[in-house]
Amino acid sequence: MKRISILGSTGSIGTQALDVIAKHPDGFRVEGLAAGSNLEVLIRQIRQFRPRKVSVATRQLADELKLAVAGDVEIYSGDEGLLEIAAGTDADMVITALVGSQGLKSTLAAIEAGKQIGLANKETLVSGGHLVMELAARNRVGILPIDSEHSAIFQCLNGEARTDASRIILTASGGAFRDRTREQLKGVTVEQALRHPNWSMGAKITIDSATMVNKGLEVIEAHWLFGMDYRQIDVVLHPESIVHSMVEFADTSVIAQLGTPDMRVPIQYALTYPERLPSPGKRLDLTTVGSLHFRQMDEERFPCLKLAYECGRAGGTATAVFNAANEMAVARFLRREIEFLQIEDIIRQVVDRHQTVSVPQLEEILEADRWARSVAASL
Amino acid sequence: MKRISILGSTGSIGTQALDVIAKHPDGFRVEGLAAGSNLEVLIRQIRQFRPRKVSVATRQLADELKLAVAGDVEIYSGDEGLLEIAAGTDADMVITALVGSQGLKSTLAAIEAGKQIGLANKETLVSGGHLVMELAARNRVGILPIDSEHSAIFQCLNGEARTDASRIILTASGGAFRDRTREQLKGVTVEQALRHPNWSMGAKITIDSATMVNKGLEVIEAHWLFGMDYRQIDVVLHPESIVHSMVEFADTSVIAQLGTPDMRVPIQYALTYPERLPSPGKRLDLTTVGSLHFRQMDEERFPCLKLAYECGRAGGTATAVFNAANEMAVARFLRREIEFLQIEDIIRQVVDRHQTVSVPQLEEILEADRWARSVAASL
Repeated sequence: MKRISILGSTGSIGTQALDVIAKHPDGFRVEGLAAGSNLEVLIRQIRQFRPRKVSVATRQLADELKLAVAGDVEIYSGDEGLLEIAAGTDADMVITALVGSQGLKSTLAAIEAGKQIGLANKETLVSGGHLVMELAARNRVGILPIDSEHSAIFQCLNGEARTDASRIILTASGGAFRDRTREQLKGVTVEQALRHPNWSMGAKITIDSATMVNKGLEVIEAHWLFGMDYRQIDVVLHPESIVHSMVEFADTSVIAQLGTPDMRVPIQYALTYPERLPSPGKRLDLTTVGSLHFRQMDEERFPCLKLAYECGRAGGTATAVFNAANEMAVARFLRREIEFLQIEDIIRQVVDRHQTVSVPQLEEILEADRWARSVAASL
Repeated sequence: MKRISILGSTGSIGTQALDVIAKHPDGFRVEGLAAGSNLEVLIRQIRQFRPRKVSVATRQLADELKLAVAGDVEIYSGDEGLLEIAAGTDADMVITALVGSQGLKSTLAAIEAGKQIGLANKETLVSGGHLVMELAARNRVGILPIDSEHSAIFQCLNGEARTDASRIILTASGGAFRDRTREQLKGVTVEQALRHPNWSMGAKITIDSATMVNKGLEVIEAHWLFGMDYRQIDVVLHPESIVHSMVEFADTSVIAQLGTPDMRVPIQYALTYPERLPSPGKRLDLTTVGSLHFRQMDEERFPCLKLAYECGRAGGTATAVFNAANEMAVARFLRREIEFLQIEDIIRQVVDRHQTVSVPQLEEILEADRWARSVAASL
């Protein structure tokens, strides 16, 4: 029986993780759930999974929640509540499924408390990769990726010596606008951007897929998770999203992980690793798919990916700034304050104005993050 | 320093294995080489690799060889010579690269002597799979597949629990005649049949690819090597031969091994396992390949594959008979005694006439093999 806490339980990854847990009632017990403000879903989760502790965004929401589920569960709120769910339960593993760099502090707290991490919050590694990986190594905490691409790479590395891996090949569907030219991106709407061709995901990551920022964040995540140099990380366009990613080895062999797009498969793999259990996923039949396509990534068409590599190579606070500027720009696009193509303009401008601090401490990362958000809000 | 003997050193796999060994002079020492009648190539190999023992097909060839390389090497001949190279050297590993079921006795001798096996002779497992696997288990001898498909499966199973594997998916290029209808197969020539679209291989296996017998032998080989039931072994047409094979796991994840078609990669993997070294293979660039295609196998078009499954399910001597009838039919086709489509007629007829012996001993397998050859020769 593995004990699990989930940060971000009412989001896309959180609810799918609970789906998986519900399918294996003998395998898991839910210890804690942290949500934002979606009380309706959280209340249902509390009734179904009976966690010992839950947390919501504000004191007011906590008071509201108490009226609905009084006595059944300890209720916390705010940043402190989040840390309580991350580090203050008996969980063996914490699924970090918050959106954005707000996940960094709670992930560090969970690692400090010796919890295994099921990492769905890539912004954590993008903002503070060196802090997270160093602390995890010191506390012998495993970081199990939940992103489908990183889960794929993790699976491809199974039983292999890391030093034999020569290259990581991340696949990219190309997102909602993969068939549009840059000219055709002018004036696209929020609704259009939210229509991902293959994956059902949250709003922020769906926009990030359309701008290719998501793939940039994944490149940086792969750098930290697998200790690969940026020259060893490639991205190829693969519109079908069947090959989730690949690893090339010293002998030119390539190992790939494939499957029907379904986030519950990588989520379950992180939960059950090193075992594999029957999953709710649909079996892949390649003869029905018929063909798989691969194209070179066009850096002119997707400048944010190139910028992510630049920030990754610069290191230090550059990636945190890249991420924070993007978070603010996406939020503004979703609020219809800016055009789609302004997202990348804003990120580029914020990154260009930033003075990188190398090997930053947590406070310096959070400061760079705040600075980038405020600049991105003003452009 | 790993010590290696090679059975079939002057054939396609044998020469490529020595190519690989020549690239890693500090990693390997050649102990023994067994060849047939190609003295010219064998003499070059003796001079380059300085084996302690060699063997050729006949006493007469041995005498001829002595004149060329006297004093440098112990020279043997015939079946006894083959057994000496298989079991009588200081080799740690024996590469079995003979063609046909003649490889069975020498493979068993090598396993009995505790040698690791690099298995390129699939007919060995098809004829006597239960004997080989049982003896290997008893002597704790590893059987490392060299066939590109089985090497792929072996790599996909790296670090995984065998019980989590739910299905093996063998890929098939379709061979030289994949785009012809059955009508268009009438009267095809030996030269046309020897033109494989993707792989450079010996004559027998190239014909077997065109009849799909090769894939049938591989299905049976996979059954024995990986302990999979025949219902768990699928074959899909994949004309590009880039995905060398796949394994589906309980959670619907599929792991695949890919690469540019080059037999030296799986050969080297068997030699260096569990390590991977730089190989002479060409790096795979999927964006240059562009697309990978997968189609269902057409059992009407390739009846030999269906027959192989039938024989596999029947078990006992049925697979040895399937194989021996094919060996004789292919030899007759190569001698231009029969038409291409008669190969499958002959196999079907021989199999239909055979009374299967279940769990046969070695002598019963060899007897069934002899019987099948004589019937196949007379049809």
